[in-house]
This record gives sequence, C-alpha cells and structure tokens, in this order.
Amino acid sequence: MAASASASLRHHLLLLRRPRFALSPIPTFRASSFPRLHQRLFASAPSSSAVEDGESSSSPVMPPDGSSVVDVNPPRGTRDFPPEDMRLRTWLFDQFREVSRIMAFEEVDFPVLESEALFIRKAGEEITQQLYNFEDKGGRRVVLRPEITPSLARLVIKQGKSVSLPLKWFTIGQCWRYERMTRGRRREHYQWNMDIFGMPKVRAESELLQAIILLFERLGITSSDVGIRVSSRKVLQAVLNMYSIPEHLFTEVCVIVDKLGKLTREEIEKELITTGLSSEAVQGIIEVLSLKSLPKLEEVLGSNVEAVADLKKLFSFAEQYGYADWICFDASVVRGLAYYTGIVFEAFDREGKLRAICGGGRYDRLLSTFGSEDVPACGFGFGDAVIVELLKEKGLLPDLSRQIDDIVFPLDEELEGPASSVASSLRRKGRSVDLVEDKRLKWVFKHAERINAGRLILVGKSEWERGMVRVKILSTREEYEVKADELQ
Amino acid sequence: MAASASASLRHHLLLLRRPRFALSPIPTFRASSFPRLHQRLFASAPSSSAVEDGESSSSPVMPPDGSSVVDVNPPRGTRDFPPEDMRLRTWLFDQFREVSRIMAFEEVDFPVLESEALFIRKAGEEITQQLYNFEDKGGRRVVLRPEITPSLARLVIKQGKSVSLPLKWFTIGQCWRYERMTRGRRREHYQWNMDIFGMPKVRAESELLQAIILLFERLGITSSDVGIRVSSRKVLQAVLNMYSIPEHLFTEVCVIVDKLGKLTREEIEKELITTGLSSEAVQGIIEVLSLKSLPKLEEVLGSNVEAVADLKKLFSFAEQYGYADWICFDASVVRGLAYYTGIVFEAFDREGKLRAICGGGRYDRLLSTFGSEDVPACGFGFGDAVIVELLKEKGLLPDLSRQIDDIVFPLDEELEGPASSVASSLRRKGRSVDLVEDKRLKWVFKHAERINAGRLILVGKSEWERGMVRVKILSTREEYEVKADELQ
Repeated sequence: MAASASASLRHHLLLLRRPRFALSPIPTFRASSFPRLHQRLFASAPSSSAVEDGESSSSPVMPPDGSSVVDVNPPRGTRDFPPEDMRLRTWLFDQFREVSRIMAFEEVDFPVLESEALFIRKAGEEITQQLYNFEDKGGRRVVLRPEITPSLARLVIKQGKSVSLPLKWFTIGQCWRYERMTRGRRREHYQWNMDIFGMPKVRAESELLQAIILLFERLGITSSDVGIRVSSRKVLQAVLNMYSIPEHLFTEVCVIVDKLGKLTREEIEKELITTGLSSEAVQGIIEVLSLKSLPKLEEVLGSNVEAVADLKKLFSFAEQYGYADWICFDASVVRGLAYYTGIVFEAFDREGKLRAICGGGRYDRLLSTFGSEDVPACGFGFGDAVIVELLKEKGLLPDLSRQIDDIVFPLDEELEGPASSVASSLRRKGRSVDLVEDKRLKWVFKHAERINAGRLILVGKSEWERGMVRVKILSTREEYEVKADELQ
Repeated sequence: MAASASASLRHHLLLLRRPRFALSPIPTFRASSFPRLHQRLFASAPSSSAVEDGESSSSPVMPPDGSSVVDVNPPRGTRDFPPEDMRLRTWLFDQFREVSRIMAFEEVDFPVLESEALFIRKAGEEITQQLYNFEDKGGRRVVLRPEITPSLARLVIKQGKSVSLPLKWFTIGQCWRYERMTRGRRREHYQWNMDIFGMPKVRAESELLQAIILLFERLGITSSDVGIRVSSRKVLQAVLNMYSIPEHLFTEVCVIVDKLGKLTREEIEKELITTGLSSEAVQGIIEVLSLKSLPKLEEVLGSNVEAVADLKKLFSFAEQYGYADWICFDASVVRGLAYYTGIVFEAFDREGKLRAICGGGRYDRLLSTFGSEDVPACGFGFGDAVIVELLKEKGLLPDLSRQIDDIVFPLDEELEGPASSVASSLRRKGRSVDLVEDKRLKWVFKHAERINAGRLILVGKSEWERGMVRVKILSTREEYEVKADELQ
C-alpha cells in the first residue's frame, strides 16, 4: 500500500468522513437528468479521476484512522454501468439483437479471455500492439481479447464438418486494449459483430451492409446523417501487381496506408519506401487511393480486375436492396486489420465530427493463418461508443426511465404481513411490484413518480379488516377500493 | 512454441489435413440432437481435451509443413457458446431478467476485470485462494472477478448520496477462478446476483427468497424438487458469545464450519481448535449446527437472541408470501463467504445429487471493510451450471430450436436482384428472412425444416415477369402466387 494519497483519493477520503447515505428522497433517476447521465456513460475519458496513469491513485491507501480505503472507481479505462447507463446499454444491444434476428443470424459467444496466439500478427496493426495480454499462473500467454473475429474463426474451425455452410453468426461482447500513458481513452468497449462464413460472393457484403443500414434506420438515423464508404483491398492488390511488388508486402502496405488521415502524406510515403517499394509505386498507390469514383477506378485499373467487378456488383445489389443512397465508393478505405482480403467498408457521420461508427470487410484467408483450410468469410464490428455520441449529437437518445407496475405500501407496520400477500399475488400474475416499507406516505408518492409506477396499492387497517385494499391510479389520480383477492 | 505436439493436437493436425467444409446439407441443429448439445453445454468438465493441464497442449505447435496451428479450443476451463448453447443461455438469462423485473430490481453491470484489493480477505475462503489475478502492464494488481458482490458494494459507495435507499439491483455476469492442476472443473461461470442495500430488516431476505422461488416456479421446478435451507450467522455468533470467544475469530470460524460435509467432523474440530477455541466450545458449536428445528434452537439459545427473532420473522413472512413449503431451518448452513453477518440461505435439490443451486445472505459490514460507512445489505448469487443440470435431470429443458419467418430463394442466378428486393422489403417489415442462393431446391427444403422456417418464397423467372413470387407455407404445404409488392 502506498503511504500517501493522490489528490483525487484525498478527495474520496474527505467524502468518506461524511455520512454517505440518507433515507431521504433524492430524485436521481428522473428523465430530466438523463442527458447528463448519457454524457457520463459514453464519454471516452474515464470519469473517475483527473489524474491519468498516476499509478498510485488506484492502490488502496491508509486514511488517518488506520483502516484501508478501497478505490471506488473501476479499473482505469473501464466503466461501471449504474441502472440508468445499463438501461441505455440494454436498449442499444436489443437493437443489435433485433436487426440480427431480422437478418436471420444466430447469436454465439466466446470467453473474453483468449490465447494470445490467436492475435499475434506481424503486420504492425495498432490492435496487436495494444494487446491486454499477460501470463496466467500456468504459464500460458493469454489476452483479454482486442476483437472477436479470431474467436469466431476458431469456433468455425472447431465445429468443422458438423455445421452446414454458410454460417451467419452474430455476437455482442466486450473487447479490451492496453495503452500505457495515453490520456482519455477507454480500455474496453462493447462490440456487435456480424459474420458470414462460407459465402464467397459479394452477396455476403451486401447482406452485412443491409444489417448496418437497418440498424441506423431503427435508431432514426438517415442517409443524410451517415454514409458508408466502400472499397476493396483488391484495388491495392491490383496496384501492387501493376508495379510487380511482391505478394508478401501486401498486408504491411495495407496497414500503412490505413494511417492516411492520422499521419501526413510524407510520413506514409516514408513508411512505404521503408518496406522496399519504389517511389514510383508509392506515387501510384497514393494516386489510386484518392479515387472516389468507380468509373474512374475502372479507367485506371481496367474492367477485368476483380476489384472493379466486385464493387460494381455490390453497388448494383445496393440499388436492389434499396440502400444505394447510404453507400459510396472511396478508394482510401483500407481498414486497419491485417487479415482483410477483399471488400472493406466503414460507416462515418457526414458532418465528419466522429471516428468511424463501424467497419468491416472480407477476410477469406484468416483460417489458414490458424493452420486450417480457408473458408470465405466477411464481417463487421460495431462499437458501443461512437454510435451513442452520434445519437446524442442528433437528439435521438430515447427516454429510458424506470417503469414499475405497482407499488405496494402498508400504512402500518402491523400490516407488513398482508402487504406481503398482496405483493406476492400480483407478482405471481407477472406484474412488477415494488414493496415499500418504513417510509412516509409523502416519500412513497415521490418515489412513485420517480419510478413511473402505474398504481399505488395502499394496505390500510380499516380496509384490510374488510378484506379490501385502496388502489390509486397514478396517471389519473383516480382512487378506489377493491377486494384484495380480486386485485388484478 | 513447443517443438512437439500432444496427442490431442496431433489429432487436430490430422483433421486439418482433410477438407473440413462442404457446401452439402448436414442437418445439425435439429431438435432431436438437442439433449446431446445440452450435455456438452453445461458439463463441468471442459469438453476440449482429454489431457488436463498438460501445459503444452494449449500452445501453438509446428505441423510438418511449417505453418503454425492454433488450438481451436477456448482457454482451459472456459466455454464457447455455439448457437444452440447460446439459445439455452439466452433463455435462462431471460428468466433471470424477467423475475428481476417482477421484483422491481434494476439491472447494473461492472467490468469483469477489477482491482485485486476488492477481493483480498484473510479468512481463508476458497474464493480468495483461487483468484484469477495478475499484474497489468502498469504494475497494478488486478483480477478477473471471482464474484460480483464487492463490485456492487464499490458502486454503492461511489454513488454515495446521489441515490435514494433502499437500492434493489441485479446483474448477470461472468465470474472466474484459477485452480492449478484440478481436473474437470470450469474456470468461469455466469452468475445472476440480486442485492438489496439499505434495508436492515429480514423483509429484504424475504424478498430475495421470493425472487428465487418465482424463478424456480417459472422453470417448472416445484418445492418437492428443491428446498431452501435457511439459518443465520447470528446463531454461531450466539454460541461464540456463550463460550466468550473473541469477536475477531467469528469470520474464521464461519469459513471453517462451512466445510462441514467436505471435510470430516474430526478435521473441522482440529481446525477449530487450531484457531484457539476450547474443545468445549468446539463441541458446543458442532451440536448447535446439527439443529434442524427452530423451536429447538430457541430452547438452546433462548428467545432473546437476535438469530431466533430474525428467523421466526422470516418464516412468518414465508407463510404470508405463500412459499413456506420451499424453506426449512437448518443450522448447518453458514455459507463460505467471509462477509456474511446475518441470515444465510442456499437452495438444494431434494434428491441430494447436486451442489447448492444458489446461495446468499446478509452482509451488513462489507462496506466498512472498504473504508466506507456500512449500509445494511443482502443478496444472492445464482450460477448457470447447477440449475441446468437440475433442469436436465427433471426433463425441464425447453426445446429451443431456431425459428425463421421466411426463406427467400431465387430459382435462377439472374434473379438474385429481385430476390434482394423481396428479402429487403420483408425485413423492413420486421420479418426474419434468410436469403439463400447457390443451393439446390432439395437443400433449401431441408434447410427450411432445419431452421423451422414459416414460409418459403421462391423467386422464379416466369412469375417475376408478371411481378409475382411463389409462396409456400411450410407447416401446411399450402402454395400460392402473390404479387411481390403485396407480400406481407
């Protein structure tokens, strides 16, 4: 234990000196306070502490009275989900699940802990440089997974012949990364993944794009808010072929050119030259990557190139699905994952304020890197952070207040038995019932408002002696007596 | 990397030599194969490999052709959830959520990774001896949480005055443990937790018990299948007071006597003596723990003891809630967690074949161990493993086949465009649609049966020229044509 407390912990300690709990009504979960809560929920900076990576601040310290105080924040870069944040998360995940159901995908899941071997790749991707990895007590190299695709691929290999292709799977899971000394970035997020295995044609990509667009539509987002940039890694492949650049440089080149926008053009060019490319090839690559029109691409690469045929097919499908206004060709899209081989895409806000909302592509050769036979595959990952920022921006966050059917309240301590029967019988009918005791009636009314209760059921002495309870409908203020055993 | 492959991996390598995927129909997810799948799902032994803790078997190895093969199994002691297993898990979690809703609890969640400090306790509990802990790259001691209660307590402290008590929270999350060299036990499981903060009376315990019993009832389990043993740690406290045993030995004694049933009576006695208890006190403790009748307990301890009053109140509530036939007093129940202070309980199968189904109790002094003011609290944890074993045992596992509304199938490759429109428009209406291509019609019919499709929508050339599609209702074999744009 550290002997001295950091500034933020000293603040905690001060708070701890005062009584922290009161049985008084403090309306916290009211709808009016919702925007603030959302801001807290998906802010990219950890809300916990102003001191970033001051290692001592997450260790327990000794307060003056000698008892140890545990840091009340979750580990640096991670989130708690108190009820109001959890309601938003559940709502969002329900949208993911509903779209997946509509698209006829099946849900799967994997351990958040995986073997490091699944994620060891040498192309210099950011994702593999920030692995949250460690050695377990048995000496195994393990990671808190940074992404879910390798686990999906692993399960596909494991299931082997016992499943019939194509497989359409989705999953929603937490992913982790570890960055040292970086301010204001989270170390975990949740990701919705949809993947199709065993479908070699761009039909698969078209289906994935429909899923993403159906989700946007359900959330109230339009094609004037959001677009999806589409390209194919085969574009870059064709350019490399034009300059006779060896096959083994392909992945590395993809990972480098994905940094366009983050690095300057000069830095990108320098990195490309370092891999051994001629400056002529580098210029050729950068020129092609600036193309934003499919006819232009066809002009440059010729129409016999797979990249062009795939993209034309995809845009023709888009017309038939009815989502052509959402997508556009943009050769600069390459995506940062090493394993993509064909079509790649990413959704972006048209105002250009946010990072990519989701991204994906085809990865036909991932399984062979695991020593198995390849299966054509494509998929996308859709995080829980940027989409919520966008919904907030557009005023599309729903009002997710708490909702309870009934509050049962005995007016007298000796009526706690009858109140138990009343609550129990309503619950057996499937109604959500909050049984409240040891409060003043005024508190109960405020509480009823706070949790949007439908009815207040008062168990009073004189009524109970006649086998009755008093019911108050909270929306209409209507009040009546009813026989306890006829209460519905 | 290890230079040689273990037996099981050699087996994998052999499998990998053969083609693993075929586009042929292999009906795997049929309802008839369900029991087998369930067996695999919740078996306590990892299904992956016969070799236990042979460390080399989960490392990548070099096959003869020089490419590395990744182990297709999840890390030792963890599970994948392929679709059929996931459906069962989702069904079970939905039951947990529905009961929690009925009881008016709010859902919360926490990171699966927590600070080790939250779980460091010195009472010798199994749970703290098997921490899945490690040091992160920033030098912090962290754990994959073994239980969720300390995180709940942490969030209650963090929320502080901003929330109004009582709090009724539930969560469903994965918990981890690390055991070396133990065969056939899993390292993770999911746990449903319900907790009440700020309710000092046994009303809180009564509410938790109703939640557990409502769950059993929803699952089709009766009080002749399952019972809930109830006692109070105050029973043991009263015995320790009778023998003037110092307060600080209480927790340790609880953790020791919880091992009754696992260890012999002689071993327990020896451990108790080692803590410094007189053999007279040890005999007294063991005698009281054998009591199974509340009147007997009252006789031994007197009626002024809190333990007796609490338990009498709880059993009186049980009558009023209507679940008295589910619960029984059993002084031997102490539970293995150090922090319980009052009522403790655990659900058991009356045939005595299985481990405890769930367990919980009151922990009024946990928050002060974290340096905060105490808040009265109680809760339970309900795992996903034993309940499924019990449901299997009783034949109560539901049939959870896949269900799809429509399959859209173009009879001709040139109709893939129209098929896209048809599928897209049905999906926009909220129907789940599987768009199938490049298969024979025979395969499509088998597939429809396998996924319990409601309708098959055939897009054929001559029909499409007239703006029509052919619909086949699969349950009745009824077949008709309908205008594509009138399809509902």
